[in-house]
Amino acid sequence: MRASRTSWAWALALALALLAQAPGPAGAQAPPPSSLDAILKASPAADWRTVDPENTLYLTIPQGRIVIELAPEFAPNHVANIKRLVRAGFFDGLFVVRAQDNYVVQWGDADSKHPTGGGQLRLKAEFDHPYAAGEPFVPLPDPDTYAPQTGFAGGFPAARDPSTGLTWLTHCYGMVGAGRDVDPDSGGGPELYAVIGHAPRQLDRNVTLVGRVIQGMDIVSALPRGHGDLGFYQTPAERIPIQSVKVAADLPPAERTPFQALRADSETFAHVIQNRRFRRDPWFKVAAGHIDVCNVPLPVRVSLPK
Amino acid sequence: MRASRTSWAWALALALALLAQAPGPAGAQAPPPSSLDAILKASPAADWRTVDPENTLYLTIPQGRIVIELAPEFAPNHVANIKRLVRAGFFDGLFVVRAQDNYVVQWGDADSKHPTGGGQLRLKAEFDHPYAAGEPFVPLPDPDTYAPQTGFAGGFPAARDPSTGLTWLTHCYGMVGAGRDVDPDSGGGPELYAVIGHAPRQLDRNVTLVGRVIQGMDIVSALPRGHGDLGFYQTPAERIPIQSVKVAADLPPAERTPFQALRADSETFAHVIQNRRFRRDPWFKVAAGHIDVCNVPLPVRVSLPK
Repeated sequence: MRASRTSWAWALALALALLAQAPGPAGAQAPPPSSLDAILKASPAADWRTVDPENTLYLTIPQGRIVIELAPEFAPNHVANIKRLVRAGFFDGLFVVRAQDNYVVQWGDADSKHPTGGGQLRLKAEFDHPYAAGEPFVPLPDPDTYAPQTGFAGGFPAARDPSTGLTWLTHCYGMVGAGRDVDPDSGGGPELYAVIGHAPRQLDRNVTLVGRVIQGMDIVSALPRGHGDLGFYQTPAERIPIQSVKVAADLPPAERTPFQALRADSETFAHVIQNRRFRRDPWFKVAAGHIDVCNVPLPVRVSLPK
Repeated sequence: MRASRTSWAWALALALALLAQAPGPAGAQAPPPSSLDAILKASPAADWRTVDPENTLYLTIPQGRIVIELAPEFAPNHVANIKRLVRAGFFDGLFVVRAQDNYVVQWGDADSKHPTGGGQLRLKAEFDHPYAAGEPFVPLPDPDTYAPQTGFAGGFPAARDPSTGLTWLTHCYGMVGAGRDVDPDSGGGPELYAVIGHAPRQLDRNVTLVGRVIQGMDIVSALPRGHGDLGFYQTPAERIPIQSVKVAADLPPAERTPFQALRADSETFAHVIQNRRFRRDPWFKVAAGHIDVCNVPLPVRVSLPK
């Protein structure tokens, strides 16, 4: 197994990383001066990027609208395929079929005969890829239980293994993936899930992650749990109908929400990370001094009209 | 800050722990032979303990009954105090007042004038304690982002810092804590919360954890989210009434559920941990080879009638 073969290299890399980053007693890594809200309010406009409507999905269910940013840098074929399915109306009239507590909510149907618009029901897996020299990645300084290195790529939490040169997205709360059967190439997009509990990081590199919910997790994660095996709803009446899934770019601008996301490579985001590693709110008595990749907030806001 | 002062010792301890546990290429840490279900089914009766009804709470809301195992080994004063409040009927007729997505659900009211039965509304914090030589603790071999060592103490996820000799419970999914104000000694039990999202480990050693939900997390975590500051419900109508909180021991045996929990120091639990670190289900293509303290299942079952 890959994990076993690389354990020594992994342990050494982690030990070196720790020694390199351990702050001295003089406080080389000074805490940021202010609260998270204040950091964001003080951020320059250039530290924000427009979330691309062409890579944004609106999933509408009776409980409300859920907005997903897609990750073509990590799953180009899956993202293109999912957009084909969406534009053919494949998901419209299908259902949320599963809500397994502390795990995932799942929707869609790989066996559906709905139109696919040339999209596929099965695709070759996109679990990880070799990272290029200049590929964006903002590393976290803290050790991670599961990966040699974690950080942020574009709008997404991610990991890297320098010993293999591979990178992959991590299964944090709100991440969206393409469900599959035992065959690794049996996913593709007709069944999607969102993580609603503690990060199931054992799924990393085992499922193709395709994006992240940037609005509406409060809806997704409060859906009633299913009580069949794996949290599937046991009766048709429990299933939650999908009214529509749309690519944001296909809607008139007046019907879109203009999201902006904080750039991972911005100074503001560096301050956010430090603020969360060293909490200075008067409420905190002990600052953790560390942070898990899945505990770092990835700020998103709606851009104000001019 | 404590985290900064101990960082070097922490890095060295972790590096040594990693080198000591890194499996050799021959697979010194062989995966367990079977599935989680099979491991539990094959477990001897002696590997299970009866969950003490004297340290079990039943929290009843319209959505159902939530069962909490209390942790007197870590928070003796809080547990005794909460039981006094419960037995005085302090919580009955109060409300679930807060549901903050990916964070906590909170209930009770520190300002209530309900009878306290001699219980206190504020207590000295029990964030951590020096561990004794023989104090039960089953360590995990994997590194943790937040603590020098993690593992299990009784029925609870916990951490230790050998450099300070302190131990504390960790904020995993389903853990229950005593809300407080800025003063660390302003908690005590009249306001309690349960973790419903990714483990907010920055809260470790900042709040007194008092137990864990062993049944009913599917109810707690699916409660509608509040949309006021910090996820508080904004209107009285949104609040969820607490019908009653009872100590299980105070109910007639016929009205209790006889829970058993897998002993953390059992061989069966060691197999559970290995099974989750090295997933062998045919579905998995890459075994993580590691596990986060908050991803280890803590099996609980209802004992069968003789």
